[in-house]
Amino acid sequence: MQQRILGLDPGLAVVGFGLIVCENSWQVPAKLVDFGVIKTSAKTPIGERLCTIYEDLNTIIKELEPDLVAIEKLFFYRMGNTIAVAQARGVLTLVLAQHKLPTVEFTPAEVKQALTGMGNADKLDVQQAVARELNLDYIPKPDDAADGLALAITAWFNGE
Amino acid sequence: MQQRILGLDPGLAVVGFGLIVCENSWQVPAKLVDFGVIKTSAKTPIGERLCTIYEDLNTIIKELEPDLVAIEKLFFYRMGNTIAVAQARGVLTLVLAQHKLPTVEFTPAEVKQALTGMGNADKLDVQQAVARELNLDYIPKPDDAADGLALAITAWFNGE
Repeated sequence: MQQRILGLDPGLAVVGFGLIVCENSWQVPAKLVDFGVIKTSAKTPIGERLCTIYEDLNTIIKELEPDLVAIEKLFFYRMGNTIAVAQARGVLTLVLAQHKLPTVEFTPAEVKQALTGMGNADKLDVQQAVARELNLDYIPKPDDAADGLALAITAWFNGE
Repeated sequence: MQQRILGLDPGLAVVGFGLIVCENSWQVPAKLVDFGVIKTSAKTPIGERLCTIYEDLNTIIKELEPDLVAIEKLFFYRMGNTIAVAQARGVLTLVLAQHKLPTVEFTPAEVKQALTGMGNADKLDVQQAVARELNLDYIPKPDDAADGLALAITAWFNGE
């Protein structure tokens, strides 16, 4: 049975996303469907930025029709902007629930571990693993979109 | 000119709200219109809780028709649940922006200062000031609803 997995890397300035289609087996390679970012400007009031995130994620879900969503778990390590990211993540979580989409959460270390075998791998290692798993001859850009794809691949590897 | 001010005390388990009507003058007492709480259960998945907050705040805005909203500014002092509160606050901010409602923010110290003249006043002092300013012979309950009213009164005192 095919499954469409959407990965979401939360943020207020940039939300990364990526959608893969995979079989119920790790033997069959997953296929890349789409990836990109939702961007909001720091010059815009926070309310409007959250509206943009709300509307754009609604559009992405309608167009890409995911069966499952993998989203990054939020921690306090990014103290400076944790509240801003958490507010944006609240809006993402709201939209996923309004669409009644099953959701799984992974920490950055869990993603690194799943894709490279090392919980402390660097960004490039993870990005190269994303390209390899999806049979791409390029690394998806920007980084936030690659992070979204890495989350989707982690959900696939975990047999979610 | 009359102004309808909605005060919002953000939270994931409890959102307090209160609406007052006031004149463009501190000489004319403000009037209490309504107060209460949006409650969500810790047994419910976060997405559903955020949906409840989204829908209930929409209902409150449609019924109470505020011209201005005063919401508590979020800090890191409540470390344990700051991320949960921030996610809920993101949803509140989204709804306010979707209704294009002007919004002002106050810290707890600013609210205490405005209502009692002391930035470190205790909860009961603030609640008694709320009752006095609105000519009530009782203290609005629960505390979160009184906090919502205190925020609305602070916006009024600040001539917002």
